[in-house]
Amino acid sequence: MVWSEPGRAHEPIAVPGIRLAEGEVLVEVELATVCGSDVHTVHGRRSQPVPSVLGHEQVGRVLAVGSRDVLAHDGTPVAPGDRIVWTVTVSCGACDRCDSGHPQKCRSLAKYGHERMRRGWELSGGFATHVQLRAGTGIVRVPESMPAELAAPAACSTATAVAALDAASRVPLEGTTVLVGGAGMIGLAVTAIATEAGADVVVIDPDLERRATARRFGAEATLDPGDDLASELARRGLGEPLVAIEASGAAPSVQLLLRSMGVGGILVLVGSVSPGPRVELDPEAVVRGLLTVTGVHNYRTEHLQRAIDHLAGNRGAPPFHELVSRSFPLADLDDALAAAATGAHVRVAVDPRRARGA
Amino acid sequence: MVWSEPGRAHEPIAVPGIRLAEGEVLVEVELATVCGSDVHTVHGRRSQPVPSVLGHEQVGRVLAVGSRDVLAHDGTPVAPGDRIVWTVTVSCGACDRCDSGHPQKCRSLAKYGHERMRRGWELSGGFATHVQLRAGTGIVRVPESMPAELAAPAACSTATAVAALDAASRVPLEGTTVLVGGAGMIGLAVTAIATEAGADVVVIDPDLERRATARRFGAEATLDPGDDLASELARRGLGEPLVAIEASGAAPSVQLLLRSMGVGGILVLVGSVSPGPRVELDPEAVVRGLLTVTGVHNYRTEHLQRAIDHLAGNRGAPPFHELVSRSFPLADLDDALAAAATGAHVRVAVDPRRARGA
Repeated sequence: MVWSEPGRAHEPIAVPGIRLAEGEVLVEVELATVCGSDVHTVHGRRSQPVPSVLGHEQVGRVLAVGSRDVLAHDGTPVAPGDRIVWTVTVSCGACDRCDSGHPQKCRSLAKYGHERMRRGWELSGGFATHVQLRAGTGIVRVPESMPAELAAPAACSTATAVAALDAASRVPLEGTTVLVGGAGMIGLAVTAIATEAGADVVVIDPDLERRATARRFGAEATLDPGDDLASELARRGLGEPLVAIEASGAAPSVQLLLRSMGVGGILVLVGSVSPGPRVELDPEAVVRGLLTVTGVHNYRTEHLQRAIDHLAGNRGAPPFHELVSRSFPLADLDDALAAAATGAHVRVAVDPRRARGA
Repeated sequence: MVWSEPGRAHEPIAVPGIRLAEGEVLVEVELATVCGSDVHTVHGRRSQPVPSVLGHEQVGRVLAVGSRDVLAHDGTPVAPGDRIVWTVTVSCGACDRCDSGHPQKCRSLAKYGHERMRRGWELSGGFATHVQLRAGTGIVRVPESMPAELAAPAACSTATAVAALDAASRVPLEGTTVLVGGAGMIGLAVTAIATEAGADVVVIDPDLERRATARRFGAEATLDPGDDLASELARRGLGEPLVAIEASGAAPSVQLLLRSMGVGGILVLVGSVSPGPRVELDPEAVVRGLLTVTGVHNYRTEHLQRAIDHLAGNRGAPPFHELVSRSFPLADLDDALAAAATGAHVRVAVDPRRARGA
């Protein structure tokens, strides 16, 4: 499904004759989910090279592998029939950024669902029946028993949640008060993972229903941004927050979490992926409070592997399966994007195997 | 020497009959140096409980040890005659802050040179003939061959410089471009240590003479804050800065370094220890740039040990011995503080063993 500009419907095209180069993989999409950034794109709030195939959260099955051996993250060769997810980013593995441990910021980075459609790489997004994976893509196996609704979002939000908590990993989570700004997909995944690790998670979100969902994902407490955080923590006997993950991208939330950190605390920003207002930073407070503010964007393959491992251990509590609350045939992609834009669903799915009207 | 209020001269008092409790140590001061914060205090720019004995950078010799065995950081017992430096802070070792790896932020923290004089702990500052070390103080041995002018500042600025670089230690220094904001004592120590570790250090300071000193401490380049940093880096073939240490405390310097970091870079704030203007933080830039901003205040005993170890390996290049460019008898402490306030000396020393007018 090809997207061209805001306000214009997606157009289906056929791509005959895919020729796989060395290290490439052709995947048949099983299920894709709509990320917030896809919604931003179709509403013109972020720029995107066009025409392009959107979508970067999906699970699929390998149809064919290019001539060279392609290895999954676990080191085993990828073969037709394998059920997999893959990284949003493709890195060269050779530049200074790749060398310095930031392959997700590679000098010649490509991103699924973010590329201009071009000859030889038409199938670069998840809102399609097939995706052509390029050499350098991180590939992670998905257990056959895992519902597609859990696996698809792993490739963006769940892996990003793992990366966000990884950025704060110098603070042990056991017994630590963790603040989460925003109860969207990333915030809920952070809540579930941190709670399982023994943290007391406090989620801050203005939406009543999202706060209720956050409690089902393990949150010890949920607050409106206008509530008095300090007295709420005191009332519940919780310690000063040493970890905070800001997943909403709203500047007031960044500011609130920044003001709320305890001594030696670390605030991870992960939601601020579009231009927005600046926040105020008090250098003296950073110094005297031994505070750390750090940013996470994209993720590394190991984070995707850990996200799948975490979801594989999930037995319905926390209820990740509830988050994909509506599904559309691929032909109705524009309806799926409109449903996602209402905010009524944490995630909306697109199913290329479902017939229109089914 | 007792300080009471801004504008009032120090008054000498005698403290007869020190009684050491378990774990305490009585030290005879060999040389003390004047830290910038002492100057701030006597000018009323920071609040200080009074009356008090200022000074927290000094080297001395053990005169007596309290009944319980007292161990130096290297694990050996401290005995009369030992030449030592000690941490600025005294921690309880038992509270949540001490437990979470931040003893320098202990719930019942005491700081040498920062305490109200009280019965039983009159000798709490370095501007004195003697200092009474309390149980819980970190003690580090000083080689007999090390000039006192190198050892005394170690207890504040050199150890803080080590702590600042330690906070950025996830980035290897070898071949990395390191920015340093401010060529004072901490900035110069950072410059020397990072250069020795193979970094290309670029020091930014508005003072021409300080920039010249920074070059003698190994700086690859020195710049005025008004210079075009990016083009200067390009001209010299230096990579994007992945480490920056802000040691001046000036808000424009914090802002400049924050804007100048490369992808995955870490900015350590260490100079901002008094109230000052806020700076602007762009959450999206933090996220997309994988930036980290972190604060360092006080330091841990291991940093003081590493500072002394580093200085012990110094053979005059970089010229740490030049930094203490003037010395006064203890009786002339007010003159020493006035000389320090001129800014003409990186460090001014106070020598309790020197007679007035000598």
